Parts: sequence; structure tokens; C-alpha cells
Amino acid sequence: MTGTIEAKLAELGVTLTEASPPQANYVPSVQCGNTLYVSGQISQGPDGLVTGRLGDGVSIEEGAAAARLCAISLLTQVKAACGGDLDRLVRIVKLTAFVNSAPNFTDQPKVANGASDFLVSVLGDAGRHARSAVGVAALPLDVAVEIEGIFEIK
Amino acid sequence: MTGTIEAKLAELGVTLTEASPPQANYVPSVQCGNTLYVSGQISQGPDGLVTGRLGDGVSIEEGAAAARLCAISLLTQVKAACGGDLDRLVRIVKLTAFVNSAPNFTDQPKVANGASDFLVSVLGDAGRHARSAVGVAALPLDVAVEIEGIFEIK
Amino acid sequence: MTGTIEAKLAELGVTLTEASPPQANYVPSVQCGNTLYVSGQISQGPDGLVTGRLGDGVSIEEGAAAARLCAISLLTQVKAACGGDLDRLVRIVKLTAFVNSAPNFTDQPKVANGASDFLVSVLGDAGRHARSAVGVAALPLDVAVEIEGIFEIK
Repeated sequence: MTGTIEAKLAELGVTLTEASPPQANYVPSVQCGNTLYVSGQISQGPDGLVTGRLGDGVSIEEGAAAARLCAISLLTQVKAACGGDLDRLVRIVKLTAFVNSAPNFTDQPKVANGASDFLVSVLGDAGRHARSAVGVAALPLDVAVEIEGIFEIK
Repeated sequence: MTGTIEAKLAELGVTLTEASPPQANYVPSVQCGNTLYVSGQISQGPDGLVTGRLGDGVSIEEGAAAARLCAISLLTQVKAACGGDLDRLVRIVKLTAFVNSAPNFTDQPKVANGASDFLVSVLGDAGRHARSAVGVAALPLDVAVEIEGIFEIK
Repeated sequence: MTGTIEAKLAELGVTLTEASPPQANYVPSVQCGNTLYVSGQISQGPDGLVTGRLGDGVSIEEGAAAARLCAISLLTQVKAACGGDLDRLVRIVKLTAFVNSAPNFTDQPKVANGASDFLVSVLGDAGRHARSAVGVAALPLDVAVEIEGIFEIK
């Protein structure tokens, strides 16, 4: 039997793949009490990396889609940390969205909404979170967006 | 009867307005146990947004004043999360200050001090916090400063 | 008798100096339950500040060495917070690495590995952490790297 969150994901046409293994001496997530800290997830989907800079070739819509991919990766890591049972996720606590930004780009919140809107569509009120969205000079592998998250799990 | 923290704010001539409602699918703060995570607050005061870039038209003094506005907004959100009773605030745990910076601007700590000094003037030792201050390429609505915070409440 | 973590540090030829005192109205770390939040530590060692920008004069190797210095400073602050007994450190929970980056520099993870690899060499599995690594436009005092951390202590 699939859990209710997985069922909602399926309804949205989203399949969580296997969580990526650690690339180095850091790990995808660390649990501390009921708090789960998930490493920054870069914008990467089935078609590969989403790269480029907002305000310099990447549109707000493309940025929001990239942020949605980060959110999917965050859920994938939460699922792995919960031993495959995403229904152990109590709520999303906090997201920090780092947006690859040209100096004149000031719509980081609209980009981050791609993640926030997706998470609320999946989780309802449990998906509402505190958030910061800032524009950074550069990101790993030139990705458009990187998002880290704090989650409450049971 | 006003609480002691509110009294100190009044003494400093600071009035907390109503907390801004959520602008999107994120919320101003999330409580997890006794830990309160407050979303990034942008530099905005009674006269509107404080915009611009440090090292490129905005002075350190103006930046520090902008950071102080962020700190006032953080307290406003803490008060709202505490049902209006700011004396439920035990201490400020951590601030992250994102300063809109030209590449040659290296005084982010002096800007962030505008928030730190204000919070200690209001809260005394309970206002002392861990902190990071970094220079970012761009911020939402071109604001000069954005600060997020972690608070211990009871 | 030196603790086991201190012994491992000595084996690696690393001596923790006295923790720097607070420079302003913020403090090096704040404990909240078993969670210790350590302020952003800038790349600074026995020979002074490590300054400059990745992708613009500072190599990946130099950046990784700078990140290692940040990690040493983080441990120094943890030790101070633990009353000198570093064996009270249960595990490293989360690091955020801010790398002073030219817009075309995209190897922030390789820089951050300088901190991650060092911490795992000292602490083993307890040193593995969640992590974000991003490229920022500017850092305090023009340092190459700033890293903040969350730690579980007992």
C-alpha cells in the first residue's frame, strides 16, 4: 500500500527516484531528534541539470520549474531518511532558496515559489514553511537553483 | 499591561506593527518544539523598502539602518508567533544576514551590526546570538538587506 | 588526559587555539537543547586571513585549504562551548559553506570538501554532515570562504 503523500505525488505525476548517494564526505541528510536537515539540492531532473542564471538567459518560469525540481529532490531525500515511508514527514519547517542571479535580478521569491507551491500542492498545510530566498553569484555546476530544507519527521 | 520587552521597545521609540500576512505558499514562521524559524525579512520600514547595493551607492550607515529594520520585522513576526506576548521570547539563537553587495564590498559585519546592536539593546543578553553575514549578488525587490532568524520561545 | 578527538587532531598536527572572543553584539555560538549553532567562521589561520575570490585568482586547492581553516575554527568554537571537552561533540549536523566566487566559478563543492574531508578525518562517521555550498558575491574582510555549522553536543 502506498502512503497518502506518495498517492498525492502520483496524482501530480511525480515519481520519486532513488535518492542520490553521497558524493563526498557529506551526507544527504542528518536527523537530530525529530528535525531532519537535508543538504542543498541542485536543480536536476530526468533530463539532467537545469543550468544558467536568472536575469541573464533564464526566465522566471524556467527558474520556478528548476526550483520545483529541487523540491522533488528534497522530498526524495526525506523519503530515504524515513526508510521509504514519506508519511513519517510531519511538516516542512524551513527552506532556503539560493537563486543563481545576475545583479539586476530581483524576483527570487517568484523563482522559489516553484518549490513552495509544489510542496503545498503535495502536502497541504503541512507543506507551508518558513523561507528565505536570496540571489547568489554562482552555484555548483552552474545550476540555476539550489534549495536546502529543514523538516520535522516522526 | 505591556510586557517588559514591549516596554523596552517603547523606550527605544519602536512600535511593532501588525505582522505581514504570508505572500505565498510560505509562512512568516514555523515553530518546531521550542525553536521558532522566522522567514527572511527584507529591509522595509514605515517609509517603504530600503533598496540598493552596499559598495555601490548604499553606505555602511544606511546598510546598518536597513539591517535594524529587518530586526524589527523579525521581532514583529516573533510576537505574532507568540500570540502577541513577546515575553515568551527566551532568546535569539541565530541570525543569517544577507547583504546586497558589490563584489568589492567587504564590511558585511558592520551592516549586520545594525540588527545585532538593536536586538541586544532591546533584549540584553537574551538578544546575543550566533550569526553569519555574507554578501549576496542580488535580493528580492532590490532590498539592501535580508535577515532570517532562529529563536527560542516558551 | 586529552580526549580522543583532541588526540586525533594532534595526530593530524592540528592544534586548536583559544576561541576568538565575540567581536560585537553577537556571540561565537548559542546552545539550544543539544543543538549548538556556531557563527560563520571566516578563513583565517596562523598566517592570517586567506582572502580573494575563487575563479579570479584563488585556486580550488587554495580554496579547499581555506575551507579547512574554517572547519578548524568551527571545532575551536565547539570546544569552547563544551567547556574545553571536545568529546562532548556527538556529531556534526549541518554546514553551510559560503564561497567567495566569480560569476563563472562553479566548483563550490570541491572547495567545501576541504572542510568536510578534514572533519571526517578527525571525527569519522560522526563528522559526516548535511551541507550546502554556494557562491557568494563578497565576504567579510574579503575572505575566500565562510562556513557556519550546526552541531549536536551532549
